[in-house]
Amino acid sequence: MSDNTVKPGILSGFMELLPDEQAVFDEMKRTLSEVFRSYGFVGLDTPVLERTEILLAKGGGETEKQVYRFDRGDTDITMRYDLTVPLARYVAMRYPDLSFPFKRYQIGKVYRGERSQKGRFREFYQCDIDIIGDGKLDIINEAECPSVMCNALHALGIDDFQIRINNRKILNGLFTIFGASDKKTEILRTIDKYEKIGRDNVIEGLTDLGVDKDKAGEMLDFVTFAGSNDEIIAKLESLAGKDPLFDEGVSDLKTVIGAMGAFGCDEKNYRIDLSIARGLDYYTGTVFETCFLPDPSIGSICSGGRYDDLAGYFTDRQLPGVGMSIGLTRLFYILSEKGYLNKQNAAPADVLVLPMTDDTLGAVSVSADLRKAGVRVQVYAEQKKFKKKMEYANKLGIPFVVLLGEDEIKEGKVSLKNMESGEQAMYTVEEAAELVKSTVSSKSRTKCVTVK
Amino acid sequence: MSDNTVKPGILSGFMELLPDEQAVFDEMKRTLSEVFRSYGFVGLDTPVLERTEILLAKGGGETEKQVYRFDRGDTDITMRYDLTVPLARYVAMRYPDLSFPFKRYQIGKVYRGERSQKGRFREFYQCDIDIIGDGKLDIINEAECPSVMCNALHALGIDDFQIRINNRKILNGLFTIFGASDKKTEILRTIDKYEKIGRDNVIEGLTDLGVDKDKAGEMLDFVTFAGSNDEIIAKLESLAGKDPLFDEGVSDLKTVIGAMGAFGCDEKNYRIDLSIARGLDYYTGTVFETCFLPDPSIGSICSGGRYDDLAGYFTDRQLPGVGMSIGLTRLFYILSEKGYLNKQNAAPADVLVLPMTDDTLGAVSVSADLRKAGVRVQVYAEQKKFKKKMEYANKLGIPFVVLLGEDEIKEGKVSLKNMESGEQAMYTVEEAAELVKSTVSSKSRTKCVTVK
Repeated sequence: MSDNTVKPGILSGFMELLPDEQAVFDEMKRTLSEVFRSYGFVGLDTPVLERTEILLAKGGGETEKQVYRFDRGDTDITMRYDLTVPLARYVAMRYPDLSFPFKRYQIGKVYRGERSQKGRFREFYQCDIDIIGDGKLDIINEAECPSVMCNALHALGIDDFQIRINNRKILNGLFTIFGASDKKTEILRTIDKYEKIGRDNVIEGLTDLGVDKDKAGEMLDFVTFAGSNDEIIAKLESLAGKDPLFDEGVSDLKTVIGAMGAFGCDEKNYRIDLSIARGLDYYTGTVFETCFLPDPSIGSICSGGRYDDLAGYFTDRQLPGVGMSIGLTRLFYILSEKGYLNKQNAAPADVLVLPMTDDTLGAVSVSADLRKAGVRVQVYAEQKKFKKKMEYANKLGIPFVVLLGEDEIKEGKVSLKNMESGEQAMYTVEEAAELVKSTVSSKSRTKCVTVK
Repeated sequence: MSDNTVKPGILSGFMELLPDEQAVFDEMKRTLSEVFRSYGFVGLDTPVLERTEILLAKGGGETEKQVYRFDRGDTDITMRYDLTVPLARYVAMRYPDLSFPFKRYQIGKVYRGERSQKGRFREFYQCDIDIIGDGKLDIINEAECPSVMCNALHALGIDDFQIRINNRKILNGLFTIFGASDKKTEILRTIDKYEKIGRDNVIEGLTDLGVDKDKAGEMLDFVTFAGSNDEIIAKLESLAGKDPLFDEGVSDLKTVIGAMGAFGCDEKNYRIDLSIARGLDYYTGTVFETCFLPDPSIGSICSGGRYDDLAGYFTDRQLPGVGMSIGLTRLFYILSEKGYLNKQNAAPADVLVLPMTDDTLGAVSVSADLRKAGVRVQVYAEQKKFKKKMEYANKLGIPFVVLLGEDEIKEGKVSLKNMESGEQAMYTVEEAAELVKSTVSSKSRTKCVTVK
């Protein structure tokens, strides 16, 4: 390389894909959008840059240290680090122009300057759905969100997952019932560590927080009770009448679980898990995590919950909502690492047209005709040896090649070669288009992800 | 508003849309992607942030003043201000993994901190297609790019445009022929102002640059000659044999113009315009601008050209290419300002299902069945008066409402109301789905843009 060139590279912690991977990623985004749109969610696209006082209105904490922030003239600017704060700002600002419930999805890049590590990205796609009410929001929406995500994951080809559902009112009520109503946040945080640190350490943590040791054990038995949804509901109902918040939570949970089936969600894809706490201050009702069963260690692939006050930093209006989010870049990275991505449909075209005479215009015309018939077509017009041209089709995984030599031109036909089977025959352009389309459409039923 | 809230707003120079506008914008992006993909272009998605030494490798000029640039630790970071430099970096860096010709499209946000003014944005979408060769690239690609864009604009609903085509070799050759081979860049720049400042001022400018006044006039007659494509070619050929570069340019131009029809581009959508110079240093062959005929004053809506050396700052490899770009945010803004956007298909759903009994689960099940049949369905589950529910459907432009009361449930049917015609009748879910789909699909043939 000469002295005046710069070595090309990208910043560490940024994902950039090769074309075949990008094709799968884009197809995943398209699939998710289509599912969200089929439920009446509208796409939103907020600016990547916002005033820092907006994005950090809540202020403090880890977030503030991680954001990309800079001054421009007199303006203190920050790159968005999630899609929820911009949504809150949007809804508060556009309130008069919106109809509620307001259902929006957003698939967009967010930025966090975290310490760089394998599988963690500084620029990554979040994929969010939220339903926002004006003042009130019906409980049925708390079943719709996980149902949408259930459908979305299936559409991607991810079938082996379980959405774990809990309700924060139940946890908070339970703490009251078991005489642990002080330090609820700390108790939640301790219970949240159950899977990581084990029962004994959690009990020790709870007694340190002033909970009676026996009660801590009882409480833990409760939240870690493993049974069917009906068994867990029955166990919860055994405590009915002791705390109004608890009772409300149980009623909500029953409604949500009862509605999942009506939304078309398969019973094997959701279950109650009373140990799910999900974050700390934000959620007020139903909470969700999603376990990827082939590898639970990767953590939740889709999470969210109900909140009562979306935009309190921007408006006095009460805007309750429910939302769920997929960390799409991280999910893609994991699926890719594990070899679960299906690149079978990643070819940039269905047909590569090879002109076999000096005149390329005939090939161009054929490509235009095939394209009109709904086929994705690329013309290869470069002056290369035949072998090189076929290698190009092979390398890109293009399933069909059309050869256009003097014989074909004379007969007004094309030679169509199936690159997989090796079969080759002459057809009219219309016949060739039909053959390609029927073959490709049966292939394209293959989904983005194939878990082996 | 209470004291502890922040007034919600966005940075000036940033576009943010309401849901119905966003629906049209998203549909435009989807339409463009689909057209590009039908020609074998693969989507790319490069990081928004790159090392400054990469993005400003070329250095200097207006760009450097406009970029958003900041330090993070030891790293000097810049937000991308176009999609071409990242493409150059990508191709140089991923060279061993790519197949050439490499055809990519990218629709992504870029950032320029320009002085804020009406219709100019600091965050905006560029929509680029490029075909990159390895060492060489056939001339036919210089016809493919404008043909793709021609098809893309039609797919959006923009029919009344003209792609103006020229070749830089012709201009450079012409300057030599007319004895103006010094200061070619300045001469180009002066001629480029023809439409703005008029003939006399251009001639004055050219004589200031040392061109003989008579020759300046002759040259200007040449480049502003208004005739059919064939007439212009004939005029150009009258100068054949005087300069090899000129002859090459004329031959190239003939090939490009001759191939546009084979690519399916209508003759009324392109013409030779010898006064198009397009930028200054970068392009080496065919150049394009696109005039939006209902309002030429908005400037070119889609431009580009052939270049010989894409990635000279990052590699010693010769990577010639041809590309075109639409400034999508600006185009959208103009179409919106002029009332050319078609929001007829902007409704978030095809059907709003209204439960008319206390139990909403029946409505949820009906919505799931309709969705399975390919209909976009939203359930309205909030406890509101009937009138409010209908207003919601009206405000969002949802074309059908399904009512599910006791009668319907008893009969296992739904009442389907066409919100436009007011007609209402009972149907099975399957019948309702078919009726909705046939009505909506005939509507959705409407394109994003309607120029009145």
